[in-house]
Amino acid sequence: MDITFLLFDGLTVLDAIGPYEVLHRVPDANVQLAAKSAGPITTENVLTLSATHALADVTRTDVLVVPGGFATQQLEHDPETLDWIRAMDATSTWTTSVCTGSMVLAAAGLLGGKRATTHWAWLDRLAEYGAIPTSERVVEQGKILTAAGVSAGIDMGLTLAARLSDDVTAQAIQLGIEYDPQPPFDAGALDKAPQEAVEILANMYAARTAATS
Amino acid sequence: MDITFLLFDGLTVLDAIGPYEVLHRVPDANVQLAAKSAGPITTENVLTLSATHALADVTRTDVLVVPGGFATQQLEHDPETLDWIRAMDATSTWTTSVCTGSMVLAAAGLLGGKRATTHWAWLDRLAEYGAIPTSERVVEQGKILTAAGVSAGIDMGLTLAARLSDDVTAQAIQLGIEYDPQPPFDAGALDKAPQEAVEILANMYAARTAATS
Repeated sequence: MDITFLLFDGLTVLDAIGPYEVLHRVPDANVQLAAKSAGPITTENVLTLSATHALADVTRTDVLVVPGGFATQQLEHDPETLDWIRAMDATSTWTTSVCTGSMVLAAAGLLGGKRATTHWAWLDRLAEYGAIPTSERVVEQGKILTAAGVSAGIDMGLTLAARLSDDVTAQAIQLGIEYDPQPPFDAGALDKAPQEAVEILANMYAARTAATS
Repeated sequence: MDITFLLFDGLTVLDAIGPYEVLHRVPDANVQLAAKSAGPITTENVLTLSATHALADVTRTDVLVVPGGFATQQLEHDPETLDWIRAMDATSTWTTSVCTGSMVLAAAGLLGGKRATTHWAWLDRLAEYGAIPTSERVVEQGKILTAAGVSAGIDMGLTLAARLSDDVTAQAIQLGIEYDPQPPFDAGALDKAPQEAVEILANMYAARTAATS
């Protein structure tokens, strides 16, 4: 079973690594990391990952995972990436995204008329592509799974692991990564975080969006 | 503020990337990824990360993060790694670990008489080094923070982010990574997982431990 992650310069690394850590543990998983070229991919800070395959060398997959990051604003308009995503989706069993990865699925035309989620700060934009913005942690629509921001990819990964194997296998993976979350604050959603924290982010996103668009 | 992650071949990638995704967002963080040599590091599956520094080129840090993985069984007996950890700890403000990274801190002699945690399957072994095994998600003892298995590094990272900055900044980071966990199962701790899932892991760990020791 081929599980292929799309990598690209500027991705948010936990978007990819959350589901990666879950899905590489699924029995018979053959994980591939595909980017425009095989080799080094820079993330949002100092970390460099390495793609195992060039996009051109992956002509089909069973599972596609598209992570997000500010750089998806460029991918939404990148024909090579969008064509490849459509080609993968043509034969995939599951087409999935984390965070703003769903903006790229939407730009590829895969989410029209479908409920979908993304990072909370981008949620309204899904409607630009005809998707139905849905504020849920993981949204399942047929073979498409979209997850909310960054860390939601772990929850999506476990949901998908159960579909690819069975509940007990997914539970064993959850126990293996000791995913019994106990955050020190309850500030991980817009309706829970203090206003001051929301403002810090709103200012940062405005600056970053302007810088990368 | 220098925040240095120890990387090594065979690490569990989410152990490092959970706190990395949190800590690189702390204002004024200068993140470094240190390994025996700068350059490619293989993880437990196909993913390769790149170390930004060789251990020899990092002579001090403010924050040390030691991730885990089966490979820590070798690091517990590796003088170069243990000496470097002791040198970092000599001047660090915070010395931290995720998962079996605490076994390496313990082997370096940093946990004697201290409460500490690690992945649930290794917890008893901390006592071999004079630490006090403590089944908690994140254990704080003076400047030492140890986290439980794999995904606990996100919770540790947020705890540490608040110490390095303030609660509102940590809450903004939590909102930024939308860390509002909603796992599809409640199986992330030994007393919550179904027995069948525990048995799957026990068999796998026995095989892996035999293969790497």
